[in-house]
Amino acid sequence: MIIHSVIFSLKHPKGSAVEKKFLADAQRILSAIPGVQDFRRLRQVSRKNDYDFGFSMEFSDQRAYDAYNDHPDHIAWVRDRWVPEVHKFLEIDYEGYAG
Amino acid sequence: MIIHSVIFSLKHPKGSAVEKKFLADAQRILSAIPGVQDFRRLRQVSRKNDYDFGFSMEFSDQRAYDAYNDHPDHIAWVRDRWVPEVHKFLEIDYEGYAG
Repeated sequence: MIIHSVIFSLKHPKGSAVEKKFLADAQRILSAIPGVQDFRRLRQVSRKNDYDFGFSMEFSDQRAYDAYNDHPDHIAWVRDRWVPEVHKFLEIDYEGYAG
Repeated sequence: MIIHSVIFSLKHPKGSAVEKKFLADAQRILSAIPGVQDFRRLRQVSRKNDYDFGFSMEFSDQRAYDAYNDHPDHIAWVRDRWVPEVHKFLEIDYEGYAG
């Protein structure tokens, strides 16, 4: 299991219609891509960083994760929405630590 | 529900006994503090950042989170282990985004 997440801020005014549309479209488009499990939209609330939102999702294995990355809907999302509308971001991928 | 997480790297050599001890002690000490739910130790595997590990935990509300922060075992952990042994870190707190 891989937990893929991205913490980000948008260029849009906070609480704006374009912000809401971005987050709604992300839910609709990304959660429908095969292999994506437990897609979550999150609000980042710590004052110890300056990101506003997060997405997280799970993949059963690296193959499912690669298929998501290579999916045309994901590629179009990154090109047409993510790059133009996102101000800054950091990607984080987790696997369980067995100890 | 608040999802509190921290992504971090240690000063210790990778795979060393002191690294393992830090991660084992974190599990033992932090997961036992009242209010901590679903404590997880994670290995950070994305090449798009240079952190090595993560911890995540959940709190039912801000009051439970504050009680954790103020708990003597947490304060001692930060002072005696986190500050001396952690190289770099970023704290992230999430709440659900309702849309």
